[in-house]
Amino acid sequence: MPERHLTVTPLGGLGEIGLNCQKWECGQGAVLVDCGLMFPDDSQLGVDVVIPSFNSLFEEGERPLGVVLTHGHEDHIGALPWMISQYKGMLSTPLPIYGSPFTLALVEHKLAEHGLLDRVELCPVAPRERIRLGNLEFFFSPVCHSIPQGYALLVDTPVGKVVHTGDFKLDDEPLGEASTLCEDIAAFAGDEGIRLLLADSTNVEVEGHSKPEREVRDTLREIFTEAEGRIFIALFSSHVDRVRIVLELAKETGRSVLVSGRSLASNIEKAVNLGLLEKPERLYTEQDGLSEAESSRTVILATGTQGEPLSAMTRIANGEHRQLALHEGDTVIMSSRVIPGNARAVSRVVNQMYRQGAKVYHGSWRTIHATGHACREELRTILELVRPEWFIPVHGEYRNLALHAQLARECGVDPARVLVLEDGHPFTLTPDDLILEKPVPVESVLVDGKGVGDVGRLVLKERRILGSEGVVIVVLVIAADTGEVLHGPEMISRGFVFEQLYEHVLEDSKCLVLDQLEDMAPHEYDRLQEKIRSSMRRFFRDVLGRDPVVLPVVSVV
Amino acid sequence: MPERHLTVTPLGGLGEIGLNCQKWECGQGAVLVDCGLMFPDDSQLGVDVVIPSFNSLFEEGERPLGVVLTHGHEDHIGALPWMISQYKGMLSTPLPIYGSPFTLALVEHKLAEHGLLDRVELCPVAPRERIRLGNLEFFFSPVCHSIPQGYALLVDTPVGKVVHTGDFKLDDEPLGEASTLCEDIAAFAGDEGIRLLLADSTNVEVEGHSKPEREVRDTLREIFTEAEGRIFIALFSSHVDRVRIVLELAKETGRSVLVSGRSLASNIEKAVNLGLLEKPERLYTEQDGLSEAESSRTVILATGTQGEPLSAMTRIANGEHRQLALHEGDTVIMSSRVIPGNARAVSRVVNQMYRQGAKVYHGSWRTIHATGHACREELRTILELVRPEWFIPVHGEYRNLALHAQLARECGVDPARVLVLEDGHPFTLTPDDLILEKPVPVESVLVDGKGVGDVGRLVLKERRILGSEGVVIVVLVIAADTGEVLHGPEMISRGFVFEQLYEHVLEDSKCLVLDQLEDMAPHEYDRLQEKIRSSMRRFFRDVLGRDPVVLPVVSVV
Repeated sequence: MPERHLTVTPLGGLGEIGLNCQKWECGQGAVLVDCGLMFPDDSQLGVDVVIPSFNSLFEEGERPLGVVLTHGHEDHIGALPWMISQYKGMLSTPLPIYGSPFTLALVEHKLAEHGLLDRVELCPVAPRERIRLGNLEFFFSPVCHSIPQGYALLVDTPVGKVVHTGDFKLDDEPLGEASTLCEDIAAFAGDEGIRLLLADSTNVEVEGHSKPEREVRDTLREIFTEAEGRIFIALFSSHVDRVRIVLELAKETGRSVLVSGRSLASNIEKAVNLGLLEKPERLYTEQDGLSEAESSRTVILATGTQGEPLSAMTRIANGEHRQLALHEGDTVIMSSRVIPGNARAVSRVVNQMYRQGAKVYHGSWRTIHATGHACREELRTILELVRPEWFIPVHGEYRNLALHAQLARECGVDPARVLVLEDGHPFTLTPDDLILEKPVPVESVLVDGKGVGDVGRLVLKERRILGSEGVVIVVLVIAADTGEVLHGPEMISRGFVFEQLYEHVLEDSKCLVLDQLEDMAPHEYDRLQEKIRSSMRRFFRDVLGRDPVVLPVVSVV
Repeated sequence: MPERHLTVTPLGGLGEIGLNCQKWECGQGAVLVDCGLMFPDDSQLGVDVVIPSFNSLFEEGERPLGVVLTHGHEDHIGALPWMISQYKGMLSTPLPIYGSPFTLALVEHKLAEHGLLDRVELCPVAPRERIRLGNLEFFFSPVCHSIPQGYALLVDTPVGKVVHTGDFKLDDEPLGEASTLCEDIAAFAGDEGIRLLLADSTNVEVEGHSKPEREVRDTLREIFTEAEGRIFIALFSSHVDRVRIVLELAKETGRSVLVSGRSLASNIEKAVNLGLLEKPERLYTEQDGLSEAESSRTVILATGTQGEPLSAMTRIANGEHRQLALHEGDTVIMSSRVIPGNARAVSRVVNQMYRQGAKVYHGSWRTIHATGHACREELRTILELVRPEWFIPVHGEYRNLALHAQLARECGVDPARVLVLEDGHPFTLTPDDLILEKPVPVESVLVDGKGVGDVGRLVLKERRILGSEGVVIVVLVIAADTGEVLHGPEMISRGFVFEQLYEHVLEDSKCLVLDQLEDMAPHEYDRLQEKIRSSMRRFFRDVLGRDPVVLPVVSVV
């Protein structure tokens, strides 16, 4: 690899919201930019998380220079434990990981849980600090997002200046730390200009400008002032700015604060330790027995914005929480967007809250949530500010990338230099061109329990059929010499029918098995299983209109 | 039952969007108002459709007076085949079904498919016609909705006037037949007033007024005029007004029309037969081989607004359709709302369309769709027009009903006479009161293949575990006398692990089975299955972090 070439391999994030992970190489070794996971979709049955394929990440003996993290969301840091596990043999000295203090606090927590903390060296980076890795120099420009201490990366490379926005929005009146992205880009570009821009495409379909967090505060203040009973507010546990708003409003309106959910309590502690939050005087957990008087003037912060079955908010709504229940007169605020795919789960939870008599704020009726991602006009602002020679949209599903590319062309980027790439399509920036490399395999990896990559298409297909049709096992033991049935046919079913209702069907199917056996000479018994399977499947289709997995177990002894 | 009491039993639709079905009784027998189904949600694995429980519908020997249908959507007519099957023993003469000609055309099609047409008498009702059933007189008031020929029901009863809106919107400039709902209500109310209002709650969360269909036409006209290649438009097959817009615009812009999808072709034929549509000159199906020149100026009407895997639009987007493929320069219009729960499927399809180079209109960027349900301000108009003595919101999830009730109170209905009821909560309107009756069991019934009601909670729970964890079967045949292992242990798994990768785990687990056997005397063999199950589950949890269904099959012969 020539020193004056930069090759970027997107391992994830170009074609999906999640899995954000890129390998940057420039002569002196590789840098990994983010290392995120994705949560499974409804077709990935039983899967816990999805991670990028790291198989082609580092070659034998190639030592990564380090990992650079833009911010601490799971889709940017969540796959670190698996990446490190896979390459720990190569890590004779700890792998440096660069990111903001809050990002690294989340990484530390995660790697400690996996017992991998000794494999890494956590290197905190201050806002606007420069870090040199090989012949790449990363400038960490603070951005506004839905988690504190996120960075865009302004990178000096031997082939010119590259901007990677990370996840960002432009909030002119932020409640957390200010973003200096626009000034930083202007200074960074100088007279030389930016050769390549990689930018967040999440909200390209949303017209206009994202709402400022201040507007959320104003709305929440109104609701806090109007509310007479307790207030339950569900939010993402890493959204520290939002948590701070709630704590401040609680203080203003003389309410105690109760935190429900481990991740919230843990993130609040981290934020307090880093000086991002002031610890409220009256901060309780659900274990604390509050007096009747006190509990009526409480704000309950809870996890569970997505209707997750085990989350605090869902259990409270369903009346399944040990310490907390909703009452007539309580107010609930679902302060988050609903991720597509979770709409029905959230809808069920909200219905339950209404059934308990609560007043519920959800959806877009009032500004109880603001996105953390730049909308169309902000993306336009960045494109017009950066005026890159080349543009490659990142962080989006295919349509987001395609629309962002179209926007870039509208903003004057040379149409021939706007590229929609997907995961596994590496490209090399040379001193005077951008070249597409041969694709690398990047099929994402499914994690199920302790298994990494052992659940693939075949297993998922089997699960889909098992899950929708059930399974019927036919047990038959035959004497090898006489052909006598020693045991069975016995039918065992799961997920098929309510057996008491269809006993006669299962009885009839036994006759079918014996019919198959009768027609067969002992030397044909090796075909018996297949015969039983096909005749049973036909029978169930005819009688019940169903097609369960049929597993005949024939033992000839 | 006194002749001067009206008892209404909601069997579905009060607590969900779907299953709309009410039994109305007033001395001289029962009338069923609508008889709808619901599509299963993601927890109802393998279920085809959900129908109301009809078990408590008609008592022994009670002959229903008839079925009154407001309109022809599946959530209002879809459960008719199962209701009629269940009660066909009681139907010595055909059951009269009342509805508009288009509604009945859909019912006829459905019942013919189920071979039940001879059990019913289809009785077409003209707009503003009156029908007497027992001592109830139904006036059918035409409404605007997303299907032609929908009716609201204005009912004269011995205990006063009742209004049931059905599904409706107020569209001042409709493109189909005009609604006369507001005039009809005013005339119907007279000086006497309305005692009870039952009204559609679907869109109570949506502020303002629904968009008129004319706005959709204007937007589609713009898109048709701009589009240079072919136009694919996905819509609901029963939305005849929308189909008419497309046919008219095709004519205006000199395009041929190609229809893909059986339900669309069949509904267009029905609408043409009833004079609701004019048959276009150049109407093709996908089987017709169009010339290159002609096909480049085509509008393709297709089913598949919800990303259904087998629908025409999904197969086209995925490149799996035999006759039709998307090309660079084609335009796709997804002219429908996305039902919650389908968001991810639709998103996948839209991404595929972008990958094929199509220009896609979906979501709310432009007015390519207008809801068929009244929004908040329309609901307010109806409440203020009707000024009912009693108000019971229908057609909604619980939160819709609760919010509609709140709106009614804001509109001046006596708060004590606004009731949020759910399925199975009958009420009786008497000359001077409204009384809540004892609840009846109404747990909805799952239909899977030919099975009706045989898939319940237990089977669904088994399917959920099978679908997310898979199944492992352990086969062992032992000689009763010697304890010798005659066959096995054999391991068969489905949906568990990719067996080639984990052969050693399955091998290890066999040793575990033999260990259990060794520790046991022959008289204890009846406990062997349970021993194997628990030791295997523990083993898989420890080694793989998974918990499959373990089914040991031990035969002692």
